[in-house]
Amino acid sequence: MILTVTLNAALDVTYGLTEVRWDQVNRVEEVHTRAGGKGVNVARVLHTLGVDSTATGFVGGPTGDAIRADLAAAGIKDRMIAMAGQSRRTVVIAQPRGATVFNEPGARLSASEWGAFVDGFDELLRGCSVVVLSGSLPRGLPRDAYAVLLRIANAAGVHGVLDAQGAELIAGLAGRPAIVKPNVFELESATGRPCGTGEDVLTAASLLRAGGADAVVVTRGAEGLVALTSDGSWAATPPESVTGNATGAGDAVAAALAVGIERDQPWPDRLVEAVAMGAAAVKGALAGDIDLAAYRGFRTAVQLRRL
Amino acid sequence: MILTVTLNAALDVTYGLTEVRWDQVNRVEEVHTRAGGKGVNVARVLHTLGVDSTATGFVGGPTGDAIRADLAAAGIKDRMIAMAGQSRRTVVIAQPRGATVFNEPGARLSASEWGAFVDGFDELLRGCSVVVLSGSLPRGLPRDAYAVLLRIANAAGVHGVLDAQGAELIAGLAGRPAIVKPNVFELESATGRPCGTGEDVLTAASLLRAGGADAVVVTRGAEGLVALTSDGSWAATPPESVTGNATGAGDAVAAALAVGIERDQPWPDRLVEAVAMGAAAVKGALAGDIDLAAYRGFRTAVQLRRL
Repeated sequence: MILTVTLNAALDVTYGLTEVRWDQVNRVEEVHTRAGGKGVNVARVLHTLGVDSTATGFVGGPTGDAIRADLAAAGIKDRMIAMAGQSRRTVVIAQPRGATVFNEPGARLSASEWGAFVDGFDELLRGCSVVVLSGSLPRGLPRDAYAVLLRIANAAGVHGVLDAQGAELIAGLAGRPAIVKPNVFELESATGRPCGTGEDVLTAASLLRAGGADAVVVTRGAEGLVALTSDGSWAATPPESVTGNATGAGDAVAAALAVGIERDQPWPDRLVEAVAMGAAAVKGALAGDIDLAAYRGFRTAVQLRRL
Repeated sequence: MILTVTLNAALDVTYGLTEVRWDQVNRVEEVHTRAGGKGVNVARVLHTLGVDSTATGFVGGPTGDAIRADLAAAGIKDRMIAMAGQSRRTVVIAQPRGATVFNEPGARLSASEWGAFVDGFDELLRGCSVVVLSGSLPRGLPRDAYAVLLRIANAAGVHGVLDAQGAELIAGLAGRPAIVKPNVFELESATGRPCGTGEDVLTAASLLRAGGADAVVVTRGAEGLVALTSDGSWAATPPESVTGNATGAGDAVAAALAVGIERDQPWPDRLVEAVAMGAAAVKGALAGDIDLAAYRGFRTAVQLRRL
């Protein structure tokens, strides 16, 4: 069982338009609404793969009700915790040439809400082999919230995959995650080092390993990923240039990495799966969708290179 | 008493950002939420002016509840009618250099919901001297919905101000509104005539009068307005270049024109008030807000010219 944690879960609203006129009034042609947040996207990918998983995090207000209703409709196991504040929304302005995302900050959690979550986390982890911690922290949480949860997970023998940014990523390293999964921009921003070349990426990733991560998997968009692990380093690239909606591709990579831990796959296999899953997510319509047929094709054609 | 009709009422959500990165992920800094739709904005301006008014239209679902709660909080008299569908949202992406508006299409109304509204409209008009009909029609309504309501209003001795677009404006003319209030782009689009010059505007406006409107007031942004009435034609221009948020300025103009009818003001007075109110709305923070101090200053300085 894999537990996905989305402390700042959201209702993702996608506005489809043929063309956006910036600084003017636009009539939205299509509105799609679904439960979101990076960890919820991970849970959705796992559910599509038939992998047993549970989604937790915080929800509140009518938007929180809509999140839970959508999780139920999707068949995702819901262990979301009620909060006093309102769940946030994200709005994606999707047009054929690209997507602009607007993320609401979300509600502020009280110290007692966070304390109750921490106290109950051990029980949420029961029966799990992996926990995936994804996305931004809600306001009101300590910056090292992910380290707190990772320590509880490690004590329970549950491996942690951390997908966070900036100071929240750096503070999370102290919890000794099995894998951190920044994209190359997040790696640059968290380490303060430019990552223009593959060498730069390895150097910056080694800082995250030194900080406490057992392995670092850096996603590089169409160039695939670079992994720095205790078994060695690899670069894995997708078989072809994949076009589509890249939102959620990183969450599909996180899902594949979590499955790799659960199934105790060797690193080369994990990385091939991760690249194939990321590319299959680009082919999916919305964040959290993967194109299973594309995934099956991609996984036999990923290029893997030891560094 | 002035009745404002907002058949496609909305919850207006404004996202404040210092800078938007298009085609990327943006963290929203501020979220403001309020009841909206053009007719609701008119009611808000009237309430600010201390003019007795009531807001009607359709609301539904949790977003409809949020609209009603905000009307109550603002002190606006609420005669909104419940519908089975969900109320829509609009999202305004506001940054210092401009605002981009995304309007959800809204729920589809059933024939029986529309029929019940038409049957009850006479009762909603009781005690009113003016009705303001604003904004797009919800899906499911006949294109001449505004003509249907205007005929009922005229039969009850209630003057109609119509602020609609395109085919809905053209079809509404058959209901013989006292005033239609397109902006210059709406006038071009509804009549199919370019309106580059003041002369062009008068020619196109005369088509709307010929179609059934007793008067046509065309708003031209920073250039003020042009009015074609049975008493003559005028151009009115604001005293200075006003910068701010132009969303809702047209609704403030509609509110001023409704007050002008109710108080039986001569046209020159109405137009001066309308220009001052529109400019004061640009100074207001959100659609439906007017800067009362600016309004008092502007109304003594509007330039009026008979054409």
